[in-house]
Order: sequence, then structure tokens, then C-alpha cells
Amino acid sequence: MSRWKRAQQAAADQGIDALLITPGADLRYLTGYVALPLERLTCLVLPSSGDPTLVVPALERAAAVASGIDVQIATWNETEDPFALVASLVGDAHTIGVDDHMWASRVFALGAALPEADQVLGGSIVQDLRIRKDAEETVALREAGLAIDRVHQRMGEWLRPGRTEREVGADIAAAILTEHVTCDFVIVGSGPNGASPHHEVSDRVIEVGDPVVVDIGGTTAAGYCSDSTRNYLAGGQVPAEYAQFYDVLLEAQTAQREHARPGVTAESVDLVGRQIIADAGYGDLFIHRTGHGIGQETHEEPYIVEGSELVLTEGMAFSIEPGIYVEGRFGARIEDIAICTADGLEVFNNTPRELVIL
Amino acid sequence: MSRWKRAQQAAADQGIDALLITPGADLRYLTGYVALPLERLTCLVLPSSGDPTLVVPALERAAAVASGIDVQIATWNETEDPFALVASLVGDAHTIGVDDHMWASRVFALGAALPEADQVLGGSIVQDLRIRKDAEETVALREAGLAIDRVHQRMGEWLRPGRTEREVGADIAAAILTEHVTCDFVIVGSGPNGASPHHEVSDRVIEVGDPVVVDIGGTTAAGYCSDSTRNYLAGGQVPAEYAQFYDVLLEAQTAQREHARPGVTAESVDLVGRQIIADAGYGDLFIHRTGHGIGQETHEEPYIVEGSELVLTEGMAFSIEPGIYVEGRFGARIEDIAICTADGLEVFNNTPRELVIL
Repeated sequence: MSRWKRAQQAAADQGIDALLITPGADLRYLTGYVALPLERLTCLVLPSSGDPTLVVPALERAAAVASGIDVQIATWNETEDPFALVASLVGDAHTIGVDDHMWASRVFALGAALPEADQVLGGSIVQDLRIRKDAEETVALREAGLAIDRVHQRMGEWLRPGRTEREVGADIAAAILTEHVTCDFVIVGSGPNGASPHHEVSDRVIEVGDPVVVDIGGTTAAGYCSDSTRNYLAGGQVPAEYAQFYDVLLEAQTAQREHARPGVTAESVDLVGRQIIADAGYGDLFIHRTGHGIGQETHEEPYIVEGSELVLTEGMAFSIEPGIYVEGRFGARIEDIAICTADGLEVFNNTPRELVIL
Repeated sequence: MSRWKRAQQAAADQGIDALLITPGADLRYLTGYVALPLERLTCLVLPSSGDPTLVVPALERAAAVASGIDVQIATWNETEDPFALVASLVGDAHTIGVDDHMWASRVFALGAALPEADQVLGGSIVQDLRIRKDAEETVALREAGLAIDRVHQRMGEWLRPGRTEREVGADIAAAILTEHVTCDFVIVGSGPNGASPHHEVSDRVIEVGDPVVVDIGGTTAAGYCSDSTRNYLAGGQVPAEYAQFYDVLLEAQTAQREHARPGVTAESVDLVGRQIIADAGYGDLFIHRTGHGIGQETHEEPYIVEGSELVLTEGMAFSIEPGIYVEGRFGARIEDIAICTADGLEVFNNTPRELVIL
């Protein structure tokens, strides 16, 4: 059954008469159309029964057709009102599910064009499909993992004392592009910058003895994302305190990989690692959740976070990435992407997880 | 006066008690913070009087501080509710203006966290500021224009028969990156692909005698966008019909550049060109508006489109880009970025607008 038919069925089950999906990962997942986030409205009108229609600006028609979509297309011209067109296709639906990332301006415009309908968030319907990867998606994520592993394996070509994080990052980005169609992010956090989990790159010159967090990812030709973090030492001696907590971090991440499997909750995966880190006295320094789902987006459901009672099932893919951060000095994070198999876990990133001495 | 103070004053004038701004061009314009579009909530709470607060996830705090913002920061940890935090900062505001690109999931969550408040779209307040570029922004757009012009001037190095659009596009993208910090889009529309205005690149091999539309842009280190379209002939003879309509197109675009200035309406700029194209019998083939505003986003206000009675004023920057498209055969578009000066128009793109024979 096509993905949009499954979404249609789920919408019907939840009493949603029509889903309205604007450009983004949900539209791409349902139709295969990678629509640009333009100011002109593109919107999939997916009624809970009957045929869907993709509303597109006239000048995007060729691009939509070229994407090979299997739904009918309705176009609007520059001076027409696309919201009235969507409303005419929605008909007398009572409950409209809008996609979670729809822009507020469109939520309000659709509300005005459909004054009798109730708006609800419809994102969970598509999320429930996207959260379980099928065989083809699993292959794509496995290949993405191999692609980013090959980049990590070349780190010694670029990362050395005397170069700035930005210089090293530019080389990494170029290497990511030889393995992917886009480079999505490059974090090179040297010394104290490693203590900021979402630091990107800076003009800081990497010094001898700096631990360096390298967290990188891209999107492959198949449209799936890679994301892996490794830790490097740019020559010199490992700082004693760093060596101590790194062992704890590796123990925690290993325990999480051994624990995660179908049947356990997302929060239990987080807790297994958090407990080890807390027991060693570093609990306050693990300042983020353990992980995020991954697929056509780098961050998507399921989130591996305290409070999530979601039970993992086959096909769920996510990162396992505990970290320890000592503000002003250094930080470390070990990150793999993994997927729940029928009875265990397949890990897609497999370069050495120990501190790599370059 | 700082930009956020001007926004605050405009909000007060319009009876909006607080603006809520999530990551995107508006947040960047108001605070200078280039926040990532993360699933974790970042939100500027800008009351119509009193001090603003930037709500950020704890692990983005360092990035927010590093951006040099001049507003106070409130952080939330992984297991806290950021919407409750925003609500506590909003207090008893009656009318809340949300940014136009806020995700639906956040619009709904804020509605639930602030059940007594009325939500309205607040985007026009920031747009009214962003639509008029100041002196510094004008310099940045002028430099962006020069940067993309230098890329167009090198087209002969890459565009030739026997290469695919994708190969040529990859070379152009690399050249854009030597002049900008990001490459935002590359359209290489050869032969029939030139008839689809938003075609990107394909594996089509460019043939002798193909007219090729090249529409390219990036973002400079100053954070401003470039965007210019030129038309090339990859050797061989100019098709007779193409030569005929190209003269008309150039005449139309020239007339539009001569007409646009403070005091005229956006739609009049569109009409001046559309009339010339229609009078020559090609009216049905000019299938899009004349242009879009540009600044920190490639597409922003003001739109140069039929029906827009907006009167142009000093500091408004926009594209002038009429096109003629013959489906299945070829197309042409001539695009410059320009800005209204005190009494005229400064055009930022100045490579030859005639068909360039390589």
C-alpha cells in the first residue's frame, strides 16, 4: 500500500477528514516530491477517503511532475488565491489535520478559508509511519552510516595542531560532499569549544593536546541522513581528567547500545547511560538527552529522552550519543546511529569509539 | 534605536502585547542570532514594553551568547516545558503576535499554554522593518551583486556542449562558494528545461545550439543574498524564434528598470514589462510575477506582482526578472537585483543582459 494510502487510513481512524501537508519531510515521505519551502503555497490535500490532490503554483508544476508523484495536481496562477483552491478541494470536511511544520501564516489563512472546520495537528499520523523504517530505508541508512564512517576514517588528513577549526571543517565538508549530496553540519569543537554541544566551527587554532569533538553528517543521494560523532586528540598528552571521564562515557554508550532493542522504552535507553555517568560523579555534565530519531531528517521521532515511555519496535532508527561537558575546558560525545532489528540492534557507525590519537 | 526596540514600538502601535519569534530570518534580523531550526524551542519573547527575553534550550545557550545578542536569555532543560516558560514571560498579555513562519505545532502549543490570549500573525511588524534596507544592508546587497556577477563572468569556463547540466551546476556551485558562504541555488536549464522556471539541474547533456538559462545565488559572509539570471548559448546558431522573443524580453526588462523608483507601485513595475511582452504576442508565456524582495532571505517582501498596490520607497530591494517560456523547446529570463534610492534605482547586477554566446 502506498504511503499516502496508509496515512489516509490512519487519518480516518483518528476522525480527521483531511490532512493538509506543506513542503517538508512529511510531504517528501508521502509523495516523493522534494518541494522547496517557497513563499508560494504548495499543499497536499489528502482526504480520509477519495483521491488526494497536490496543489502547486503553476510554475512548479513541471518540477512536481518530474518528481514522479502518483497524485493528481491542481495548479494556481500568480494572482489566484491558493487557499481558496485548497478549501474547494477539502469540501465540507469538519476536522482538518495540518502538518506540524506548517507556517503560522498558512495555518491562519486556511482557518480563514475554512471557517467551519476545526484545525488539529496532523503531524503524528505521518510520524507514526516515518518512525518505522522499511527495508529500503534501512539499506539507505546503512549506506549513510558507511559514508560518514569513511569521512571519520580520513580525519588524520585534516585535523592537526596549528589549523583553525574552520579550516579543518572546510576540508571535512568537502569530504562529506564526496560521499553525500549535501553536507548538513560540521562540528569541530576543540578544547573549550568541545564543551558546547552545538558549537559548529570557529577561528580558534587547534593546539597540541586539545581534545576535539567532531560531529558530522550529510544527506545521501537516496535522501537519508548520516550523523556520527568521534573524539580526536591533536597530538600531545591526554588531559588526566578527560581520560577519566572518557572511560565512563564509553562505558555508558556501550551499555546503551547493548540495552537498546525492541520492547524497551526510549527513556530506559537514556537512563542506562545516564546512571553510569551519574554514578561516576559526572551526572551534571551530561546536559542533553541521549538521542534523536533519524531518516529523511537528521532529527525526527523517536527521541531517546527521559520521560519518553515510547516502546521501541523493529525499524526505529535513532542516535545513541551521550556526552560529558566541562565548561571552559573540553567535552566529549560518542555518537552512533542504530536501528532496532526484529530482536536486537544494528549499529550503522563502526569506526573506533575510543579517543583517536592523531 | 535597536531593531527590536523599533519592532516593540510598532507592536504597541498595533495593539499587540507581545511578539513571539522563533528561529528564522525575523529572529536573525531582530537579534543577530542565526539560530538553527531545531526541534527544541528557541523563541524571542518581545513584549510591547519592557525587556525582551530569548528562550533557548540549555545546550544552545553558548551559541546564543556567542552571537552577541543584546537581550537577556532564559534557558530550559531537556525535560522542562519550554511553552510554560514562554507563557510565564508573556504574563497577562491579551494579544500575542506569532511570527509568520512559526511551526503549526508551536502555534498550537502556545495556544494551549496561553488559553486566555488571542493569537494573531505578527510577521508584518518585522516585515515592515525588513522591507526597507539601511545603509549597511545596502552595502551588503551591493557586494552580493558583485559576487554573483563574478561567477556569471566565468561561465565560459564551465558551460559547453557535451557536459550535463549537473556537471556544469557543480562547477558553478563551487565558484559560488568562493564568493559566498553558502550556495543557495543553481538553475542550469538547457533547451527544453529552460522552459520550467524553477528547474534546477538534470543529467541532460547540453547540446550545440541550446539556449541555457542560468539562475544562481548564494549568501555572503555578511548574511545577504545574491540572485541573478543570465542566458547563454552553448555554441551553434541562435534559434530564430528564440532570438525574436529575446529582444522583446530584454526590452521589457529594460523598461522595468527604467520605470522602478520610489513613488511607483509594485504592480506598475510588473505591468510595464508585461505589457511589452503581451503586445509582442508572448503574454501567455510570461507565467510568473516580475520579482521578489531580497535581503537576508532570497525571497521576501516586497513582491513585484500584479495586484500589489504597495508604493515603492527608498531602501526597498527586489528582483526584476521577466521571463518567456516555450514549453518543450526553451525559455529565457533576465534577472537583476535592484534597490530604490532616494530618487531612482540602483541596479546591483551589471553583467551583459544580452544572450551570451560562449
